[in-house]
Amino acid sequence: MLEYKVIFHIDEINKWKLLLGNVSNLLNGIDNEKLYIEVLANSEAVKYYDTNQDLDVDINTMESLNKKGVKFVACNNALKAYDIKQENIIHFIDIVPAGVVELVKKQSEGYFYLKP
Amino acid sequence: MLEYKVIFHIDEINKWKLLLGNVSNLLNGIDNEKLYIEVLANSEAVKYYDTNQDLDVDINTMESLNKKGVKFVACNNALKAYDIKQENIIHFIDIVPAGVVELVKKQSEGYFYLKP
Amino acid sequence: MLEYKVIFHIDEINKWKLLLGNVSNLLNGIDNEKLYIEVLANSEAVKYYDTNQDLDVDINTMESLNKKGVKFVACNNALKAYDIKQENIIHFIDIVPAGVVELVKKQSEGYFYLKP
Repeated sequence: MLEYKVIFHIDEINKWKLLLGNVSNLLNGIDNEKLYIEVLANSEAVKYYDTNQDLDVDINTMESLNKKGVKFVACNNALKAYDIKQENIIHFIDIVPAGVVELVKKQSEGYFYLKP
Repeated sequence: MLEYKVIFHIDEINKWKLLLGNVSNLLNGIDNEKLYIEVLANSEAVKYYDTNQDLDVDINTMESLNKKGVKFVACNNALKAYDIKQENIIHFIDIVPAGVVELVKKQSEGYFYLKP
Repeated sequence: MLEYKVIFHIDEINKWKLLLGNVSNLLNGIDNEKLYIEVLANSEAVKYYDTNQDLDVDINTMESLNKKGVKFVACNNALKAYDIKQENIIHFIDIVPAGVVELVKKQSEGYFYLKP
C-alpha cells in the first residue's frame, strides 16, 4: 500500500479556513493509501490555537480532523513571541520547540511540504 | 540528460502575474535538461481560468507556455466552490478532482514544489 | 552526522522580518547536525538587498547569519525588473541568473523548500 506523508505550513492567521479546507479535501481525496498529515503553525498563525483569543475558530472541523489522525502542532517560539500560555491552547495541540526545525525534520522523513 | 519536474502551486488570484513570470523564467533558464512543469490552481486562483469572469487574464502568455509543454490544472473542488462551469474555463486547462491530492501525488512522483 | 540543506524562498518584501526570524530559529534549533541554509529572494523581495532604497533593513541580523554560513542570494531577473544595480546591493549577496532555476536546482540537490 502506498503511503503519503504531508506537512502543511501556516504562518498567517487569515489562512486557517483555506488550510482546513485543504486538509479536508486531502483526506476525502485519498482513498486507498495511508495518510500522515501534520499541520505546523508558527508566527502569528499560532494565535488560532489560543482559547483566550476572541477568534472565530472552527474547532469542530479541527477536532474532526484530529480524530481522523491529523496532528496539529504549534511552534513554541511563536507561542512565546505572542505571549500565549501553553495551558490556554486547544487540548489536542502538540508543541514543538521550533516550527522551522519541525518543517525541516519532517521533510527529511519524507513528508511533502504544502503551504496554502 | 538531467530532467526536472516542477509543480507550481497558486491559490491567490493576485499571484498570477508573478507565477507566469516565474514559469517563463524557469523555461528560459533551463537549457539542456528536460523540464516537466505543471501549474496547479486551487481556491480562488481558479477564477483566472474562467472565461466568464471579467479578469485581466494574460491568455497570450498562458497559451505560449502551454505550447511549450506547461500544463495548467484546476482543482474541481475549487471550481465548484466558486460556481465555475467546466464548459466556461479556458480550453487547454486540465481538471483534477482535488488540487491538494494532485500536489501530493506529483511530489511523490519527484516533482519539486514552488509557491510564488 | 546528519546534515540538512534548506532553501528559504522569499518574493514579498514584507516577509523579510518573518524570514530572518525563521532562519535564526532554525540555526538555534539544530544542534548536532550540519546545516546548509540558502535564502533565495526574487520578485520585489530583492529590493531589500538594495542599499539605495530607504528600507528598514535589519543588516545586523543578516550579517550575523551570513557569518554563520547562511547564503543570501538574489535573482538577477528581479534585480533587472526593479532596476537595481548590482554595485548597489549588500556586499555579501550572491547573484544567480534566475531565482526559480536556483530553487529547482537546489531542491534537486536535496535542499528542503520553505516559504515563510
